[in-house]
Amino acid sequence: MRTLITGGTLVGPLGATPTEILVDGETVTALFVPGSLPEDLRGSLRDGPDSSVDRVIDATGKYVIPGGVDVHTHMELPFGGTSASDTFATGTAAAAWGGTTTIIDFAVQRTGEVVEESLAAWHAKAEGQCAIDYGFHMIIGGVDDQALKAMDYLVANEGISSFKLFMAYPGVFYSDDGQILRAMQRAAESGAMVMMHAENGIAIDVLAAQALARGGTGPVHHGYTRPPELEGEATNRAAVLARVAGNCPLYFVHMSASEALAVVSAARGAGHNVFAETCPQYLYLSLEEHLGAPGFEGAKYVASPPLRTNTASHHDDLWRGLRTDDLAVVSTDHCPFCFRDQKELGRGDFTRIPNGIGTVEHRIDLVYQGVASGRLSLPRWVETCATTPARMFGLYPRKGVVAPGSDADIVIYDPAASTTISASTHHMNLDYSAWEGFQVAGKVDTVLSRGTVVVAGGEFHGRAGHGRYLRRGLSQYLR
Amino acid sequence: MRTLITGGTLVGPLGATPTEILVDGETVTALFVPGSLPEDLRGSLRDGPDSSVDRVIDATGKYVIPGGVDVHTHMELPFGGTSASDTFATGTAAAAWGGTTTIIDFAVQRTGEVVEESLAAWHAKAEGQCAIDYGFHMIIGGVDDQALKAMDYLVANEGISSFKLFMAYPGVFYSDDGQILRAMQRAAESGAMVMMHAENGIAIDVLAAQALARGGTGPVHHGYTRPPELEGEATNRAAVLARVAGNCPLYFVHMSASEALAVVSAARGAGHNVFAETCPQYLYLSLEEHLGAPGFEGAKYVASPPLRTNTASHHDDLWRGLRTDDLAVVSTDHCPFCFRDQKELGRGDFTRIPNGIGTVEHRIDLVYQGVASGRLSLPRWVETCATTPARMFGLYPRKGVVAPGSDADIVIYDPAASTTISASTHHMNLDYSAWEGFQVAGKVDTVLSRGTVVVAGGEFHGRAGHGRYLRRGLSQYLR
Amino acid sequence: MRTLITGGTLVGPLGATPTEILVDGETVTALFVPGSLPEDLRGSLRDGPDSSVDRVIDATGKYVIPGGVDVHTHMELPFGGTSASDTFATGTAAAAWGGTTTIIDFAVQRTGEVVEESLAAWHAKAEGQCAIDYGFHMIIGGVDDQALKAMDYLVANEGISSFKLFMAYPGVFYSDDGQILRAMQRAAESGAMVMMHAENGIAIDVLAAQALARGGTGPVHHGYTRPPELEGEATNRAAVLARVAGNCPLYFVHMSASEALAVVSAARGAGHNVFAETCPQYLYLSLEEHLGAPGFEGAKYVASPPLRTNTASHHDDLWRGLRTDDLAVVSTDHCPFCFRDQKELGRGDFTRIPNGIGTVEHRIDLVYQGVASGRLSLPRWVETCATTPARMFGLYPRKGVVAPGSDADIVIYDPAASTTISASTHHMNLDYSAWEGFQVAGKVDTVLSRGTVVVAGGEFHGRAGHGRYLRRGLSQYLR
Amino acid sequence: MRTLITGGTLVGPLGATPTEILVDGETVTALFVPGSLPEDLRGSLRDGPDSSVDRVIDATGKYVIPGGVDVHTHMELPFGGTSASDTFATGTAAAAWGGTTTIIDFAVQRTGEVVEESLAAWHAKAEGQCAIDYGFHMIIGGVDDQALKAMDYLVANEGISSFKLFMAYPGVFYSDDGQILRAMQRAAESGAMVMMHAENGIAIDVLAAQALARGGTGPVHHGYTRPPELEGEATNRAAVLARVAGNCPLYFVHMSASEALAVVSAARGAGHNVFAETCPQYLYLSLEEHLGAPGFEGAKYVASPPLRTNTASHHDDLWRGLRTDDLAVVSTDHCPFCFRDQKELGRGDFTRIPNGIGTVEHRIDLVYQGVASGRLSLPRWVETCATTPARMFGLYPRKGVVAPGSDADIVIYDPAASTTISASTHHMNLDYSAWEGFQVAGKVDTVLSRGTVVVAGGEFHGRAGHGRYLRRGLSQYLR
Repeated sequence: MRTLITGGTLVGPLGATPTEILVDGETVTALFVPGSLPEDLRGSLRDGPDSSVDRVIDATGKYVIPGGVDVHTHMELPFGGTSASDTFATGTAAAAWGGTTTIIDFAVQRTGEVVEESLAAWHAKAEGQCAIDYGFHMIIGGVDDQALKAMDYLVANEGISSFKLFMAYPGVFYSDDGQILRAMQRAAESGAMVMMHAENGIAIDVLAAQALARGGTGPVHHGYTRPPELEGEATNRAAVLARVAGNCPLYFVHMSASEALAVVSAARGAGHNVFAETCPQYLYLSLEEHLGAPGFEGAKYVASPPLRTNTASHHDDLWRGLRTDDLAVVSTDHCPFCFRDQKELGRGDFTRIPNGIGTVEHRIDLVYQGVASGRLSLPRWVETCATTPARMFGLYPRKGVVAPGSDADIVIYDPAASTTISASTHHMNLDYSAWEGFQVAGKVDTVLSRGTVVVAGGEFHGRAGHGRYLRRGLSQYLR
Repeated sequence: MRTLITGGTLVGPLGATPTEILVDGETVTALFVPGSLPEDLRGSLRDGPDSSVDRVIDATGKYVIPGGVDVHTHMELPFGGTSASDTFATGTAAAAWGGTTTIIDFAVQRTGEVVEESLAAWHAKAEGQCAIDYGFHMIIGGVDDQALKAMDYLVANEGISSFKLFMAYPGVFYSDDGQILRAMQRAAESGAMVMMHAENGIAIDVLAAQALARGGTGPVHHGYTRPPELEGEATNRAAVLARVAGNCPLYFVHMSASEALAVVSAARGAGHNVFAETCPQYLYLSLEEHLGAPGFEGAKYVASPPLRTNTASHHDDLWRGLRTDDLAVVSTDHCPFCFRDQKELGRGDFTRIPNGIGTVEHRIDLVYQGVASGRLSLPRWVETCATTPARMFGLYPRKGVVAPGSDADIVIYDPAASTTISASTHHMNLDYSAWEGFQVAGKVDTVLSRGTVVVAGGEFHGRAGHGRYLRRGLSQYLR
Repeated sequence: MRTLITGGTLVGPLGATPTEILVDGETVTALFVPGSLPEDLRGSLRDGPDSSVDRVIDATGKYVIPGGVDVHTHMELPFGGTSASDTFATGTAAAAWGGTTTIIDFAVQRTGEVVEESLAAWHAKAEGQCAIDYGFHMIIGGVDDQALKAMDYLVANEGISSFKLFMAYPGVFYSDDGQILRAMQRAAESGAMVMMHAENGIAIDVLAAQALARGGTGPVHHGYTRPPELEGEATNRAAVLARVAGNCPLYFVHMSASEALAVVSAARGAGHNVFAETCPQYLYLSLEEHLGAPGFEGAKYVASPPLRTNTASHHDDLWRGLRTDDLAVVSTDHCPFCFRDQKELGRGDFTRIPNGIGTVEHRIDLVYQGVASGRLSLPRWVETCATTPARMFGLYPRKGVVAPGSDADIVIYDPAASTTISASTHHMNLDYSAWEGFQVAGKVDTVLSRGTVVVAGGEFHGRAGHGRYLRRGLSQYLR
Repeated sequence: MRTLITGGTLVGPLGATPTEILVDGETVTALFVPGSLPEDLRGSLRDGPDSSVDRVIDATGKYVIPGGVDVHTHMELPFGGTSASDTFATGTAAAAWGGTTTIIDFAVQRTGEVVEESLAAWHAKAEGQCAIDYGFHMIIGGVDDQALKAMDYLVANEGISSFKLFMAYPGVFYSDDGQILRAMQRAAESGAMVMMHAENGIAIDVLAAQALARGGTGPVHHGYTRPPELEGEATNRAAVLARVAGNCPLYFVHMSASEALAVVSAARGAGHNVFAETCPQYLYLSLEEHLGAPGFEGAKYVASPPLRTNTASHHDDLWRGLRTDDLAVVSTDHCPFCFRDQKELGRGDFTRIPNGIGTVEHRIDLVYQGVASGRLSLPRWVETCATTPARMFGLYPRKGVVAPGSDADIVIYDPAASTTISASTHHMNLDYSAWEGFQVAGKVDTVLSRGTVVVAGGEFHGRAGHGRYLRRGLSQYLR
């Protein structure tokens, strides 16, 4: 099966150039300057598929970009007595609809569990279900001697080179500073990446209990009790511990606050291997307007860290961070819970609202709005959504780039089209949208996953089970 | 004329992958994954050149990189009553020997001169002489109404999008802060880049006169009288003026000092379009060891800004800057003066030593030593020496990348070979080497300029006049 | 003549304590804890003046503070074809009314003038005219060999230990960076203080000319064309030059902008002898509300640096600087020009509006408002208005403190009273007030200058000629 | 009983002036300018004690300073199965010998103990034992609802306005971040000061266990396992928590590391009520030279935080901090353990070495060496050792100043004398000296405590029980 993508502008982190792309089977096999196709392919340009090419995709007037890589999703995550509403099947299909062709989800080990068994459980959930390729990070919820050994095993044998720790959620995922230090020491030796949820959960739990005691039970108190200073503090603490551990590579997930960004900027300026991602919700939504919506409506926007106040410069600072590379990646932290029956568990007690927002389908579109509005360059859109996440987590050049030898994960993006986001049209298994009514300039036109067209002409052509598990190497972003 | 480069590892800013490269005429026309060459090319792999391919270059075990782009050279520059010893002919040939296939030299307007006439004079020097492609920046030594108009003209009509100003050399190239502000305002409007020599020349002249008055006449006083604080100060001043001018794009040339780098880091962290280059001499050589060498030997190392003390952390900080991208480019500031008759003009008065060091031939090798020693990643070597300079000065994707449609400026670099630098073997027109005896791991093996092999098998195959003038667009690095 | 001040609370930089104060002649000779007066003085407490005490001042319920020290005044300053409207006679009387018992005014040397002759001219203006004690700083408007020698002479023989330079006003007071460096080197050797007007005047003149050319002629353009970035830039430049000069003590006058304060904070944090003052106008008035008042009204507020925008945090930052000691002193930069005939010289061309605001009478009151509103502590009020200025400029413990041996410059301040500022009631020779209608909590009740009551009971008891010239030593604030 | 101190130079934070001092009973009742004593006292100057004055102290050629205030001592502290070797009797006598006339010691509450009972226990230890006045801070080792209420009670009723928390020593004094936050909230309301031992004890315990497991058992490992980064981290965390708690006043004890000082500098620059002290050991002694001494000798220098490496700039930075007021106070953290039987408990396991160094006798001398060597000004010596500690902890103007109404705690210091420190001559109950052989320029000559001469002529005239408990108010240093 050979596919020729013709007429489009190939966009990568360095710029945009007209390029013809030949896909053979699952792989990009050649790039050509327009007008210099080999003799045997030229006929197909004129006449369409022939003996040399099975399919010709005309990308005239459109951008051709590497398929998106969303390195932060939580399909089917058990949380607060319920589970995230997207299965690996529904979630990866929605991702594909949105131009994301790779996800890295989080397998979860909790205190007392055997890491390898936890991983096996997650493999069981995902295997045969995914519409696109997928990998796993491993959450280490219970750092102990056994878990530390398992970290090395997973790096060496399971293609898992990144481990997430939590400074929040005491009693659930929380690691204390000694556990964090030990895990970081281990990662510093193996070259693995430590991913950090950086909020001071111990202090937050005090504030939350005080709020409830004062009768502050609604969703907005989720925001008030997790102030940005406590994200900044935890970010600094983790960065210091990483240094003490022997310069462990460190990646901050879902950065939301100027205070935290400042820590990352300083560490990066000093040359440390410290990285961070943000998510669309922290670029667009706010505590006042969304989390503080009337009634229980704000529950739709409860995620941790919380949406931040729009009386400070968090949004502007995060956009600037994306430009300066202090924020390297945009992921979604996709963790959907339906409003009915799930978010509603927290009526009367905001601490019981399942944490999460569903965005896996909209990331490419939402970041592209930065390009449309002049806040981000076109190359930087591709870099933050596809190339850097692939390099960061050991998938490059298989993913994140359209180059000879890469997997043919390719998105044709139409900058002239437009859409409006709505729960009535999205493909996530979610009964509301945090982005309801959001107008989007640009539109995903066609999506290929390993050479197979999975979305085209407004139809889904993918299937559960097409997606394969990705064994990852070490991060390629270390300096 | 078609050339196939096979067996090598293509290195770019994002990583390294085995890739087959087809060159047709002057252009890269296709990239292939190994093993998937079109039918008509496959024979050449086995049997060498045939009807489909005129030349096959076996790059097995070697790196294939885009030809180097040196954005800071001064061929034949008149300075202090003499002229830089390399002509465009000798200098560009030496560049090619060293894997650099593009230079951007500086045309010079002085107070009272008509910019367009000055440019014409430089065209006359270069035309028909160059072994590789070349462009011009324009030095505006006399900012006035006419010169400001000429800046716009050059951007629109002459392919010159960058203008160099001097905060040093009062009475020669110096612009005062009002002139700088006006030129920056003009550049902010047109999108042109202002390049800045940032040293406080007014204060330096006081220190130099005082040193001479005290009997401090030797080369080392060149260093003592240009302290790093005064590079830092001027760097800050220029960055502020650029902001006042309406966020003029600003590029600091030949950064040498930690104090200056700190200013650039802060400005970049704040999201401003501020950039900087350094040069190999500031990464390896020092005031004490080289500028302070016994007798008049230090004259060989007189350049401005001066080599810095090794009692501070300048070297380490600059290497870190290259890793963090606070330093985006390595150029040479190639400005050679022979020791005999030229450097000797300053015996007894260091202020009369012609300023400059000749390095155009060694840049790629010298920066590669950072890779060999683990200070810099392989992709970052290519990025700082080729890709970023091309993007920074409006030459991308014609230069700085090996991709379909790019000029076939390609270097085959052999990491397993090694050389030693010496005036007895170098190709620059210079009777000494600042790098005499410097051991180099790695070696330029083969160099193509626009599809023509100009260096191969230890022989020069280029010719004066092969190189063409490059009309450049605006910088593509603006955020 | 012996005076006993009884019943008051003595306030100094360290705190406030009930203290009885004995003044004998011009000097404070003893402090007593209440209740422990020597036998011979006790009767006076009960019965009033007797053989042991000539005068008893009852300060019950009031603060007793050292007389204010205003280190930045310009009486009779020739500027822009006219002269500041307060003579030494009127200006010092107004100062006394406001609780200031010492001024340090600026003698002015201009290019080509002999420093000693210029100083003599200023002595001639002041001698026999002043109601309170006075000293001189020397403005060096023309740094050359002769002026540099004169600096040493003035330190050694004339009691002048501080020299003001200008980075603004090219062609008038402006020194270039080489001149500044030389003067700083001289001061570093003698221990003298360099005082700096830090604005980049070269760049400002370009902006001002451009504004006029565009038809921007009104007072507000004075503010637009002197942006805070250019005060920050000059502040940094001066701080760097002081370091290069050998750590010359450096004092920034009339700091107005957050950008400049940040430079001072950093330099002070690094342990350098860098200091700054601000003035009441920069703490309370703004570009929009005052400089941008309708019609030509803004001319009343034209001073350099200009009032700053209230869309940024300049006011808050300056108040914070006063708390943190990054701003050590509040002076007035008293330089009054009447609206009629003086300010009006600049109708149609803001560059011709004489620069200056008259505040010498209101400084103690205006800073006290910070105490009243909780922005400043009571001890810090005294420290910034009296103690630190005296220490900074070599007058301590003669001035700036109420202690045995100090000059009996004492103010009784009534925190329970209040006033309203108005041109109709002030004592400055000025036909308007920049502070018209400003409500003041607190009131100067009684003022002693060297033991003589000069203000009491709402009457002026002072006289021209009472004030004596103060020979000053080196700054006592150097660390 | 009336004492006249004549002929000396009174030194305070603002400067030094010749002053005659009259003490009546326990109080300074008057200050006189030399030559202006009241009639009835004049005779005593000439003839010595008479009917008007019981004692005349001739301080000619000497400094007269307020008695030292050491705000950080641990007399009889139980620690690691033993107790600090100085009792309140021996320790306060030694303090008096060294010119310290006030200590603030730490009463200790541990988890489960009732704060008021713990305080009573400490009162029982001290009452009737002290040679000089003393106060208590309260260590809250177990923050819970009861302890939080007790904090308010102690502020209101017991004259205790400062509470110490520990981020180190898990299982002993350690508070987690939630406990710290709650205590800070309470202090923010009452205006009390939180004092913080800022080291990340959780991470340190991991490093210490790892060191022991690797066979690193000697004293130097105490230093290796408590890296300065972990002091910096904890310092930042506490500063953030204080802000979240509502800007609780915060005082860092025994600051030892540049990393921690940088945090304090930044917080103070931002205007927060954050303060810090250092101790002589961190100004003079080092990890390599002292903690790393051969054999078990290093045990003498085991304290927490540990002595820092002399390969970084900790010493210089701390001295600079004292100059810039980022370090406000020098205390001793006096916590002596004899080498024999006490320090020796840790042979073979550095974690069992009792933590502490004994310096209460030498603080005034050791800081004066900074004056003698030009690192600190004379006024700043008095400010850091007496005035600021008194203001910081609510004792001013009773303590920390020589002024009418102050307690007559006065030290006559002879700058022309000199001594050498030795265990053979010191008065602390300690069988070694960390300062053995240290040459001291200057010497405590005479010490008065509340008007009583306790040290004079090389003899101790004090007595256990002279010292009284000091009820303290809130800090007077808040801005």
